[in-house]
Amino acid sequence: MPTPRQLSLNAFIYPAGHHEAAWRHPESRPERIYDVTYYQEIARTAEAAKFDGVFFADGPALRTNIRHNVAPGLEPITLLTAMATATTHLGLIATASTTYYEPYNLARLFSSLDHISGGRAGWNIVTTGTSLAAANFGLEAHPEHAQRYARAREFVDAVLALWNSWEDDAILLDRAAGIYADPDKIHPIDFVGEHLRVRGPFNAARTPQGHPVLVQAGASNEGRGFAGKYAEAIFTAHQQLSDAQAFYADIKSRARQFGRDPEHVKILPGISPFIADTEEGALRLQREFNELTVPEYGLIQLEDIAGKSLRHLPLDEVIPTELFADAGEVTDNAKSRLQVVAGIVQRERPTVRQLLHRLAGARGHRVFAGTPEQVADTIEEWFSNGAADGFNVMPPYYPGGLAVFTETVVPILRARGLFRTEYTGTTLRDHLGLPRPAGRFAPGSALVG
Amino acid sequence: MPTPRQLSLNAFIYPAGHHEAAWRHPESRPERIYDVTYYQEIARTAEAAKFDGVFFADGPALRTNIRHNVAPGLEPITLLTAMATATTHLGLIATASTTYYEPYNLARLFSSLDHISGGRAGWNIVTTGTSLAAANFGLEAHPEHAQRYARAREFVDAVLALWNSWEDDAILLDRAAGIYADPDKIHPIDFVGEHLRVRGPFNAARTPQGHPVLVQAGASNEGRGFAGKYAEAIFTAHQQLSDAQAFYADIKSRARQFGRDPEHVKILPGISPFIADTEEGALRLQREFNELTVPEYGLIQLEDIAGKSLRHLPLDEVIPTELFADAGEVTDNAKSRLQVVAGIVQRERPTVRQLLHRLAGARGHRVFAGTPEQVADTIEEWFSNGAADGFNVMPPYYPGGLAVFTETVVPILRARGLFRTEYTGTTLRDHLGLPRPAGRFAPGSALVG
Repeated sequence: MPTPRQLSLNAFIYPAGHHEAAWRHPESRPERIYDVTYYQEIARTAEAAKFDGVFFADGPALRTNIRHNVAPGLEPITLLTAMATATTHLGLIATASTTYYEPYNLARLFSSLDHISGGRAGWNIVTTGTSLAAANFGLEAHPEHAQRYARAREFVDAVLALWNSWEDDAILLDRAAGIYADPDKIHPIDFVGEHLRVRGPFNAARTPQGHPVLVQAGASNEGRGFAGKYAEAIFTAHQQLSDAQAFYADIKSRARQFGRDPEHVKILPGISPFIADTEEGALRLQREFNELTVPEYGLIQLEDIAGKSLRHLPLDEVIPTELFADAGEVTDNAKSRLQVVAGIVQRERPTVRQLLHRLAGARGHRVFAGTPEQVADTIEEWFSNGAADGFNVMPPYYPGGLAVFTETVVPILRARGLFRTEYTGTTLRDHLGLPRPAGRFAPGSALVG
Repeated sequence: MPTPRQLSLNAFIYPAGHHEAAWRHPESRPERIYDVTYYQEIARTAEAAKFDGVFFADGPALRTNIRHNVAPGLEPITLLTAMATATTHLGLIATASTTYYEPYNLARLFSSLDHISGGRAGWNIVTTGTSLAAANFGLEAHPEHAQRYARAREFVDAVLALWNSWEDDAILLDRAAGIYADPDKIHPIDFVGEHLRVRGPFNAARTPQGHPVLVQAGASNEGRGFAGKYAEAIFTAHQQLSDAQAFYADIKSRARQFGRDPEHVKILPGISPFIADTEEGALRLQREFNELTVPEYGLIQLEDIAGKSLRHLPLDEVIPTELFADAGEVTDNAKSRLQVVAGIVQRERPTVRQLLHRLAGARGHRVFAGTPEQVADTIEEWFSNGAADGFNVMPPYYPGGLAVFTETVVPILRARGLFRTEYTGTTLRDHLGLPRPAGRFAPGSALVG
């Protein structure tokens, strides 16, 4: 009997939790956010539950309003390396920027993570949405969205070519003859683009996974095109089943247009679950967190999304819908967050404070409060109705918010036959059901599997 | 009674060992060079012997003639992170290039390593000597030596400013008041140089060591000036006591000129010891390795140093000294290797094969074959006569070459009161006797301690 289609579950780690006030709640551990053992423990929790992987967002700038919230401090690739040594199966996905890195350096870091972890690395490819980064890299201005994507396409092509520049059997290790490797199986890449030139070859052997899994999160038209061509997994933010279904269908169709198997692009919406024995208890827990928010903090975030000043608005009056009427088309990834907010304002007619609470949960990702059964239900609904191949689980608070999910929701998903009870492979590709890509120089192979 | 001056000992790790033919010798483990547990075992050996630290060289290009020798494949910062999780005290020093990295990215990686390891990170600052790197970063040509150093000075200033941009007490963690950090204690750095501009602030708290230890290896005039100003430890290559003494005196004097305490610049020459119970046995072991060399490989390396074709020379005839007569002044770091070779050619009048064997040991570093007692003697001689504050131990083969050093030479050094029996601190700065630098924004503090 063939195994029924299985959910992919991933833990999106944010230092104290995804709720913006998590660090103030007694359940969180903000005093440990520079302590590697804190993350190693989270990794062990995710691995014990047989999660596909863990994931870190990243940006090369201090973005957070640090007065009222923790900011991630540890660099994710080094942090995941430390988590790799504390686990054996868990996938390890880090965000890194094509705008603010050099392909050769980035290729090396992820290659090394894949070797060190025995084939568990994933790269969440971003072009970096924050203009604050530009000034940390000597640029007058953050490059335009289209320009960032143009560089991103070249960047990924160059990195893939580097990762594939050693054929799988390049190393001969013939001690008697004094021949370590066959130089004819190690190729310069001679990549020449408009933005990047990289000669190669790479200075490391091909990795256990062939190359790290390519992950992506862009929601703009350009981002979706990019995802259709390259992404093997997509982290996405949707509030509504219908929106998620439309996105799902669009991406799978784009992948097909690029001649790819749509099953090799996993779509993983974010979900930030408040879980308690009763629905009322879950809602109470959510309120407890919302009441810890600092409105000044939320307003700065919201102004950033809206691109206009909002602090003159009385906190407890309904937001005029006109203020978000110009959300328009999603031309870039920042706009996609604006569209999510505009949707909430129009559907729910919240007061400013209610909207701030709504967004406090997971920065535009879907927040869901309910019993374990209810959380499992919504996961199954999206999974079985063409909206998701799995989820990026975003606990509102760490470490307990992950533990309650793995202890109460995962067993229900298992009982329904939707999620593994044991790992059936050892690499992140194995968990996601992705093939190991053939090398670029293997006859007849495609660049991405 | 004050503790007498103590040696600093460091293990320079090279995949199969520092001898170029190590990978062919049955004592080495070239099949494990992509296996993180191999390096973790080496780290535990070094830590059990109470070494100050371990060290990796690095360059962003495939430099080795891969047909006849292994090349390092794992990126050192990720690799040291994995080694950090397998140890508790050992210092962790990685080489990284100021020419081919961005300061913000590099500052993050080393900051993270320092946080993850609890204060054990060191950065060996290089400008990258190989022209092969340029083409991997879109450059037509490798930048000139002086230009590389001009950027390096700005780079280090910017990175130091980033590392110090959070004051030590910036994090308040006041959950009740909802105040995580004091933004007035987190400073933009507004670094503006000719080559680099970095606004900051950094996106992580100050590290356990204040900042990672700054290590340097330049031997040119420019490199020495740089070392005098910034370096807290220097890895250097000398064949002769007198040369090492002159270098030692020069660096200490330069440090003084920069207003620094010369004791806060540790000078650590390389030594690659073949060790056996008898001197004859040690020499035999060295011959065993030399006989495994592939002359074609050595000639390519030597031509690279000499900057001219040498393969027409008969292997068993004495090298004409004129061929190395133009070594001249050391204008850059590549020249310093040429000068080492020229010195050998003039003093020892070797045949080509003898010179290749001479250089096969440790790429111009000092190779010494002897009994444990003799190795301890030469270490003590250099240490007690103004040539070294300690050594960068470069085992000709790994892992056994390090084990024999720690098992046979270290006990002798301890019996002579020259090396610690226990760690007296927990950070790399503690082991090296370096103070924790005050932050840049602490009143009256210097940038480097």
